[in-house]
Amino acid sequence: MNEQRLADLEQRLQRIEDERAIERLIACYGPLVDAGDAESVAALWRADGVYDVDEWLMAGRADIAAMVRSRGHQELIDRGCVHFLGPAVVTVHGDEAVAVCDSTLLVRAETGYRVARGGANYFHLHRAPEPPGQWQIVKRITRRLDGSIDARSLLVDGIAGRIR
Amino acid sequence: MNEQRLADLEQRLQRIEDERAIERLIACYGPLVDAGDAESVAALWRADGVYDVDEWLMAGRADIAAMVRSRGHQELIDRGCVHFLGPAVVTVHGDEAVAVCDSTLLVRAETGYRVARGGANYFHLHRAPEPPGQWQIVKRITRRLDGSIDARSLLVDGIAGRIR
Amino acid sequence: MNEQRLADLEQRLQRIEDERAIERLIACYGPLVDAGDAESVAALWRADGVYDVDEWLMAGRADIAAMVRSRGHQELIDRGCVHFLGPAVVTVHGDEAVAVCDSTLLVRAETGYRVARGGANYFHLHRAPEPPGQWQIVKRITRRLDGSIDARSLLVDGIAGRIR
Repeated sequence: MNEQRLADLEQRLQRIEDERAIERLIACYGPLVDAGDAESVAALWRADGVYDVDEWLMAGRADIAAMVRSRGHQELIDRGCVHFLGPAVVTVHGDEAVAVCDSTLLVRAETGYRVARGGANYFHLHRAPEPPGQWQIVKRITRRLDGSIDARSLLVDGIAGRIR
Repeated sequence: MNEQRLADLEQRLQRIEDERAIERLIACYGPLVDAGDAESVAALWRADGVYDVDEWLMAGRADIAAMVRSRGHQELIDRGCVHFLGPAVVTVHGDEAVAVCDSTLLVRAETGYRVARGGANYFHLHRAPEPPGQWQIVKRITRRLDGSIDARSLLVDGIAGRIR
Repeated sequence: MNEQRLADLEQRLQRIEDERAIERLIACYGPLVDAGDAESVAALWRADGVYDVDEWLMAGRADIAAMVRSRGHQELIDRGCVHFLGPAVVTVHGDEAVAVCDSTLLVRAETGYRVARGGANYFHLHRAPEPPGQWQIVKRITRRLDGSIDARSLLVDGIAGRIR
């Protein structure tokens, strides 16, 4: 009897820990990319992970670190920018998971900041074998919310927890 | 002795699961409404749930789905919009709960997006008898943060966990 | 055997409760400061807690409450403002903790709202002896994200969970 209750508690707690680890990973993206910490941003992805953002397809950590070090991104940081991600909705399927959130990019202007982008973000993640408990991004797809079907279906798949 | 510790753990875990279910429900609103998924948006509410947003009072799921399908909302989606909700503060009282969060509405403009609204959001939720563990919105009140006492008292009641 | 499993569960759950208490505290800041609730805002800090925000250094709860009651802040509230904080990344070290999040300040304008600020927020918190389970802010440092090294190092220290 107690054995079953213990096992149930362990399973429920593990599920929350998994979801929270993924929420935390996603919440780290904005601060790390705004700080320009290229290695730490890239380490959020699996070694062969993909970041597909509108016109830019990055494959592997070297590509992602290169984006952070790129002239375009460094100019954003120097001017002042906030990559602001909202609370993620996470669905765990064993060692795979899907998450979705909104994002906005604020860029410093003469007075205050302007809202340069508004985006839908879809994440497919997996549980890495090492270190235990670590989740990594397999694929992140980010699309501008501009009325396109593409961005809208990202949101629907993300909330439904569908792996693409 | 172990019986008491098990019961305490179960109760503490249940509380976190309840709060997280409500946080997730609220985090789903933006992606679902920006995707235009009228049925899924409406299903966040109880069958007779109310959505009271400034000049618009919706009563029941059909009203809420009709808002998503309305010309005004479809035009927002076609232009490109982000209903961005912040992290919710949740207070559970047994089978009832109160939550509060900020929100902003970004609408695509010629260059970038403009911030069309900034709002205070108050939620009264209840635990549905079926399916087990599901929470639903009984009443959501959203007010523009424009200096009015109305919007400010929503925030105070929401943080205090007061049911209106 | 069961003793060890119970103790492990209690410890894992306590960690989540601590992190969630801190996430909630941070999520309360925006609604409370936009409502103008000076006492409740100040009570988020330890009695001698510090709030260091760009050009303004507040030391102790009386200073923080005075900021909320100040003419500058009251004018923001009367015009309509949203202090919007994103999801916090929290790292607990026993009775001390570090958290970091992005923030933006929206201020009502002729049409819609303008983005007056975009900031990096670093929090050092401690577990108060009374009431049990309550966390308080020892020091909050907020810096405009304007390309300065100062703001960027706040983000890096916050994500790394480094106490300053």
